[in-house]
Amino acid sequence: MPAHSFSELHTIPFYECNVNNRISIPMLINILILASEHQNENLGLDQTYLIDHYDVGWVVTSYSIHINQLPRKDSVVKMTTRGTSYNRYFAFREFWLHDQDGQELVKVESIWVLMNEQTRKITPIDDTIIAPYQSEKVKRVPRLTRPERIESGADVSAKEYQVRWSDIDFNGHVNNSRYPEWMLDSLPMAFLNEHEPGNIDIRFENEVKYGNRVTSSVLVDSSDNAKIKTVHEIKSNDVLSASATIIWKEIKAKGNDQS
Amino acid sequence: MPAHSFSELHTIPFYECNVNNRISIPMLINILILASEHQNENLGLDQTYLIDHYDVGWVVTSYSIHINQLPRKDSVVKMTTRGTSYNRYFAFREFWLHDQDGQELVKVESIWVLMNEQTRKITPIDDTIIAPYQSEKVKRVPRLTRPERIESGADVSAKEYQVRWSDIDFNGHVNNSRYPEWMLDSLPMAFLNEHEPGNIDIRFENEVKYGNRVTSSVLVDSSDNAKIKTVHEIKSNDVLSASATIIWKEIKAKGNDQS
Repeated sequence: MPAHSFSELHTIPFYECNVNNRISIPMLINILILASEHQNENLGLDQTYLIDHYDVGWVVTSYSIHINQLPRKDSVVKMTTRGTSYNRYFAFREFWLHDQDGQELVKVESIWVLMNEQTRKITPIDDTIIAPYQSEKVKRVPRLTRPERIESGADVSAKEYQVRWSDIDFNGHVNNSRYPEWMLDSLPMAFLNEHEPGNIDIRFENEVKYGNRVTSSVLVDSSDNAKIKTVHEIKSNDVLSASATIIWKEIKAKGNDQS
Repeated sequence: MPAHSFSELHTIPFYECNVNNRISIPMLINILILASEHQNENLGLDQTYLIDHYDVGWVVTSYSIHINQLPRKDSVVKMTTRGTSYNRYFAFREFWLHDQDGQELVKVESIWVLMNEQTRKITPIDDTIIAPYQSEKVKRVPRLTRPERIESGADVSAKEYQVRWSDIDFNGHVNNSRYPEWMLDSLPMAFLNEHEPGNIDIRFENEVKYGNRVTSSVLVDSSDNAKIKTVHEIKSNDVLSASATIIWKEIKAKGNDQS
């Protein structure tokens, strides 16, 4: 029996877009998480139920995001997700974004763990929690590509951020979508206006809380001009919070065109 | 003939909410602007059309926001807007947010001007641009309550922000919804977790651009404990960008309850 797949349509409003009128990376992550939350609800296993009955919650540890095209403002996209497979500690979830013609715009692979809400420690995945997803029980879930690390002494740029109240989630930690926001903002505006990510491998290591300061460091590798690569690290008090490798492509069609 | 009224439904996803699972003030502003943009499109007068045919765009100068109740995560709200009246230079637009039972959650009054896209100067409102809204031509549009100013030497708290790439709009300026975000963030987390705005008078003075630093100052007046008042100023290079007066109320029902 294949894993239970969940789809819904979403129209992208202006406030989910960047200056190029395409969905921003933080909002791309948010809308996909929304689809998975709706699947959880649909299967009777939403956040509140998991806390009330098991004292656990799902936490994402890494995403591998492949972008063919970022959807434009006002476009309607179909979001699809399924909990593809799992083992004792890890669940492998996939996401797709398609346009109205069925073209694949974005594909995301992700790894999740169940965290105890009191101890904030990883707990084994209870079969009763995963059964409704019809996920395949496997020995090993797929390994996502690990983001590169910045070698010490490398020529990095860095920006500092104070965590804002609005960065904080219902659970008291920084919302995952803020890490890519800090990562992208470490790059110059001129670059961001002309390029967009084609591939993002991002990994979340340690939670950041209100009041913390974070440093967003980036190493730009433009040795291959057609395929600029950036390596990112978010640290708080010298502890790694998140890391990412992004492969960029030039934006060809800009402005208000319909492409 | 009464002004043309436009309504649509909106479901509030988790990423439009604050830590209390209620819609955040920046997102409240965003969804209402979305409704007015849809009305503009509906009447054939969207942003692109105004730029292409008149080289102008609508710019909001002030909001007066009255909040009975901030809608919760996952709730469905009805957004309504109309361009109520106008004179030579100013347009008065109203917004309402209702719940599914028809209860008024939020009422917003706002003043708009037309700005020339090249000169960034205010231009008279062309009758052909406003006619489809069936707005009433008046001698004086209603005056919204002006936010108070912070007297020099007052006991203020202040935080500094670097404008981020993600703060910037399609038009190259800071998105209006960022000003209330900076204003609220200048208050302590403990206060924000326990209180929400009942009334916000906010006025936008000067546009802020990428690369600027802004200072968000707040004066807290808790002389009337049942009705805490805060006065806010956002300045960039000592020039006033936005000001606001907020009247607060205590949050009674918290967490995941259904009230």
